[in-house]
Amino acid sequence: MTPTTPSFDIAHLGHVEMLTDRFEESLDFFTRVYGLKLSGQDANSAYLRAWDDYEHCTLKLTRAATTGVGHVAYRCASPEALARRVAVIEASGFPVLGWVAGDESHGRAFRFTDPFGHVFEIYYATVWHRPTGAEVPALKNNASAFTGAAPRRIDHLNLLASDVTEFRRFMETCLGARVTEYIQLDNGRIGGCWFTVNNKTYDLACTEEHGRGHARLHHVTYATDSREDILRAADIFLQNGVHIETGPHKHAIQGTFFLYVWEPAGNRVELANSGARLILAPDWQPVIWTETDRKKGQAWGLKTIETFHTHGTPPTPTPKE
Amino acid sequence: MTPTTPSFDIAHLGHVEMLTDRFEESLDFFTRVYGLKLSGQDANSAYLRAWDDYEHCTLKLTRAATTGVGHVAYRCASPEALARRVAVIEASGFPVLGWVAGDESHGRAFRFTDPFGHVFEIYYATVWHRPTGAEVPALKNNASAFTGAAPRRIDHLNLLASDVTEFRRFMETCLGARVTEYIQLDNGRIGGCWFTVNNKTYDLACTEEHGRGHARLHHVTYATDSREDILRAADIFLQNGVHIETGPHKHAIQGTFFLYVWEPAGNRVELANSGARLILAPDWQPVIWTETDRKKGQAWGLKTIETFHTHGTPPTPTPKE
Amino acid sequence: MTPTTPSFDIAHLGHVEMLTDRFEESLDFFTRVYGLKLSGQDANSAYLRAWDDYEHCTLKLTRAATTGVGHVAYRCASPEALARRVAVIEASGFPVLGWVAGDESHGRAFRFTDPFGHVFEIYYATVWHRPTGAEVPALKNNASAFTGAAPRRIDHLNLLASDVTEFRRFMETCLGARVTEYIQLDNGRIGGCWFTVNNKTYDLACTEEHGRGHARLHHVTYATDSREDILRAADIFLQNGVHIETGPHKHAIQGTFFLYVWEPAGNRVELANSGARLILAPDWQPVIWTETDRKKGQAWGLKTIETFHTHGTPPTPTPKE
Amino acid sequence: MTPTTPSFDIAHLGHVEMLTDRFEESLDFFTRVYGLKLSGQDANSAYLRAWDDYEHCTLKLTRAATTGVGHVAYRCASPEALARRVAVIEASGFPVLGWVAGDESHGRAFRFTDPFGHVFEIYYATVWHRPTGAEVPALKNNASAFTGAAPRRIDHLNLLASDVTEFRRFMETCLGARVTEYIQLDNGRIGGCWFTVNNKTYDLACTEEHGRGHARLHHVTYATDSREDILRAADIFLQNGVHIETGPHKHAIQGTFFLYVWEPAGNRVELANSGARLILAPDWQPVIWTETDRKKGQAWGLKTIETFHTHGTPPTPTPKE
Repeated sequence: MTPTTPSFDIAHLGHVEMLTDRFEESLDFFTRVYGLKLSGQDANSAYLRAWDDYEHCTLKLTRAATTGVGHVAYRCASPEALARRVAVIEASGFPVLGWVAGDESHGRAFRFTDPFGHVFEIYYATVWHRPTGAEVPALKNNASAFTGAAPRRIDHLNLLASDVTEFRRFMETCLGARVTEYIQLDNGRIGGCWFTVNNKTYDLACTEEHGRGHARLHHVTYATDSREDILRAADIFLQNGVHIETGPHKHAIQGTFFLYVWEPAGNRVELANSGARLILAPDWQPVIWTETDRKKGQAWGLKTIETFHTHGTPPTPTPKE
Repeated sequence: MTPTTPSFDIAHLGHVEMLTDRFEESLDFFTRVYGLKLSGQDANSAYLRAWDDYEHCTLKLTRAATTGVGHVAYRCASPEALARRVAVIEASGFPVLGWVAGDESHGRAFRFTDPFGHVFEIYYATVWHRPTGAEVPALKNNASAFTGAAPRRIDHLNLLASDVTEFRRFMETCLGARVTEYIQLDNGRIGGCWFTVNNKTYDLACTEEHGRGHARLHHVTYATDSREDILRAADIFLQNGVHIETGPHKHAIQGTFFLYVWEPAGNRVELANSGARLILAPDWQPVIWTETDRKKGQAWGLKTIETFHTHGTPPTPTPKE
Repeated sequence: MTPTTPSFDIAHLGHVEMLTDRFEESLDFFTRVYGLKLSGQDANSAYLRAWDDYEHCTLKLTRAATTGVGHVAYRCASPEALARRVAVIEASGFPVLGWVAGDESHGRAFRFTDPFGHVFEIYYATVWHRPTGAEVPALKNNASAFTGAAPRRIDHLNLLASDVTEFRRFMETCLGARVTEYIQLDNGRIGGCWFTVNNKTYDLACTEEHGRGHARLHHVTYATDSREDILRAADIFLQNGVHIETGPHKHAIQGTFFLYVWEPAGNRVELANSGARLILAPDWQPVIWTETDRKKGQAWGLKTIETFHTHGTPPTPTPKE
Repeated sequence: MTPTTPSFDIAHLGHVEMLTDRFEESLDFFTRVYGLKLSGQDANSAYLRAWDDYEHCTLKLTRAATTGVGHVAYRCASPEALARRVAVIEASGFPVLGWVAGDESHGRAFRFTDPFGHVFEIYYATVWHRPTGAEVPALKNNASAFTGAAPRRIDHLNLLASDVTEFRRFMETCLGARVTEYIQLDNGRIGGCWFTVNNKTYDLACTEEHGRGHARLHHVTYATDSREDILRAADIFLQNGVHIETGPHKHAIQGTFFLYVWEPAGNRVELANSGARLILAPDWQPVIWTETDRKKGQAWGLKTIETFHTHGTPPTPTPKE
């Protein structure tokens, strides 16, 4: 793998649409326990954001017959950058869905899919959150009032795919993303790959999965200001009967301090802290993790929990799960 | 002020050359107390870096007759980006010093100055730190062995200038930097301005100063992974007799948790933590702080210490100081 | 000063009755912003506790014509210990008020006063908080459901007196308290004194004050699990418009990490963290701080804020305040 | 189990003698990696302490043919308390070894054993650490210079025994300890029991073990000021190739945030933080954990690692280990 240069046309991960078949419980979880704010709501969706997300919506929670990811949205750097990207995507051969009208959180968006069925969109016109009343932050450089909740801003998501090498080609081609770290399996395949479009160490990861389903989601993550926020959140999850799957611990890959829980409908959500780590080097070479490396477990030796390899959303009726 | 778009030609702040007239004491401070690593040393300079800085040097400590900043260096995104920037700078009308050969930490660099005498350079060819022996990190995505020291990577510096508006024109023109926050004085002048070339909230700040000297430095800062790292460092500074000027506290501007100390020769150095805060919005509007805002003090009410307005390096014989 | 041995008859500081002439605002502050829980309420008082306080009440907030402290209550180790202490106090010559009936939070208590008008009581029979429903903690060794709020348990209070030496005699005689640290003024007087009845480093402090009033309160403090809890609380106070008087910073005396705010009626309340510090040595010698020591400010150099020397409750019409 | 009252004759856990058959490596680990200070050394032992331990020695590291615990020492509250305790122990029927001369860290001590072969001693005369030179702390209420290392003071140890009920009788009888929490097995036996002689939540724990050996040690623990100290230590252990057995995580029992590693000779050592938790209630009822409770794992769901049930020192040739 040779390093790639970010296109700069894509500014950042904008939002993720998460599907839930337990809408009310999921909404209660995200607002009362996980700590997001409700920006608005329409017939089928709730528009959520963390206290320092500048956009109206970073998590669109949508009532559905099942769970998983509705779509993944990246915001472009400018209208011109959006046009450039659309042209690239249309020429790429990856499946194009075309323009959609947007919703209360952003303007028109261009949709396309990866080869595994995940729907992506890119957009530029967005709705900045304009706080009023009690939502006005004490510090004018914050997006809205500090609540004390752990999530400060959306961070990344993880998607499952049967061919990570092909997914990588999709991300590099369509989003101009670059690879910061990946897992090189002994069989020559890529077991997992971490992508970024900016200076964050990653905004999307892809993990290999076979025979378990289509277009599955592994998890969605919000960033916290400190590891202490995550330790405190663990006690809040414990007190509220939330299923804590694994953590708090530190990933070897990317060095992220993490905590994974399942929201009421079963979608996995994470809280993560990267400390001061950024990818600033323009000639960053992807870090390669071998199977031997992975056998050491997480950074401090925690074995990866079995459900991490089997649980995704929507769930699938496989022998193992 | 209208927002500007980053050029992407400049990748990040690379290093700062700090002058000291107490070289041995300064070197002892930076390596034993502040927590940097010594990458190498030549006749006049020590090349220092934090444990997760990828370059051979992020602080070049140079023996001199006085204190202050020798030069400020930004790394370009590619050789082509370097060439583009050189052309822009040469056409800008700002004073050009031309190419220099580089040193043990990087290849040739193009030098120029701001209107206040601070020397800048841009370069692409650099020396990646290649750890060996005990310096090999346990996690291969770290630049070198974790030491437990507070500074993880270089973060930013602050320069003093008599005309911040003019300094802003310099930064936008020569480096393609964008302004994220600034202080709007009642007299119409800009009191301070914060710049970034990437997704960091700032990598350089400029504060207005009159009649105190030329090309002065306010401070150089390294980033820590947590606020706890800074609290712990405060106790280490206390134990080692280091002059703690102000902090730990939280800045209203940029929301940075900070601690300022003076190294033995008198240069101000900071440790800072920004939590998960980044500037990801491509259309970020600079946050404007008025004099009325500033009268509230720092975020939690701490009054700005008087020496913050008077102490810079090199020192100057003014009535007030 | 020779060290004293704790009597062991007194187990711990039980509760403080705080007076407020803005009852509704004070109650809103303590429950919604500061993070206490409401155990119950009667005509004139609200009974509050932190999430891990085992007693029904550790802060009794009482509607009054002014502010300050109603009484200070210590719990005895047993009924026999209570009887022993009552005998000691009755023989001590300090003013005795006699038995009172108690309230919804504890049984009968024996009241007496220090020479400066502060009312103390000691009691044994108490009401353990028995959580039900959503108040049941996830971990059975916690007193009630974890809320994420900063205060974990009551910690200490600080009273103002014109003669700290005499106050010390009162504490040693009546409560069998021992002195862990004190300020020795150049004029031979004691400027402040810290007392404990158990292994906490202090549960009561007394600071010298002249000509400002009678039976005044300096502050009441709750303990937090971490310094991060206090930093987070600072942002919550900021967001809620609470007057932050000073901090977060670290006291030189006792090494406590602190944050002082004023509740709506003007009583000063603190959040504090002592880390792992305890006084376990049975032959602990009081640490003596001189005026020279005190001129260094707090541990990391913060100057003591002027209002710390003038503001107490109830307020008094003095020239300086 | 009815609650017991502490005797107050025993002030606190004083020190633990740890045996090592890799003396040099163990000493290097404790001083360079774990963060203790070397107070002194004689032919067979190194006398170690944490930076805020007031005694000359809290860990006596002794060269031996095997690993495990040499003896466990508690300091009495006074010479009279020591005499009282000796009388109680002599009358108790538990095996008495009699007076020993002490060493460079304390005066004469009275030795006795529990029914499982662990040697205990009690003493009063001790050697306070009197710092000089660079060891003088910046804050005079600290025992010695702050180093930044995680361990602040000795906290507790855990011993293995075949009959925890009998061990409990030993602790209550000989040391006047009280039980704060215990594990009630379905078979009627006690699986583990936590004891304290003061306001700490525990200073000694005992865990049931069958057929694996005699007088075995489970672990020795030092307290840290914060959870962040432990997270940072985890990275230091990782970097130094130390075997991290389990953690960082939070125990359900006692709510302690923990990290367990093996020092080079195989003795298990822990770093732990209890936050602001203390046992202040004089009528504290032991918290009882059932097997059903224990099946939930640690506080945030981590399964107890298998070696926690098998690894002790000295090691024993059992089928499972």
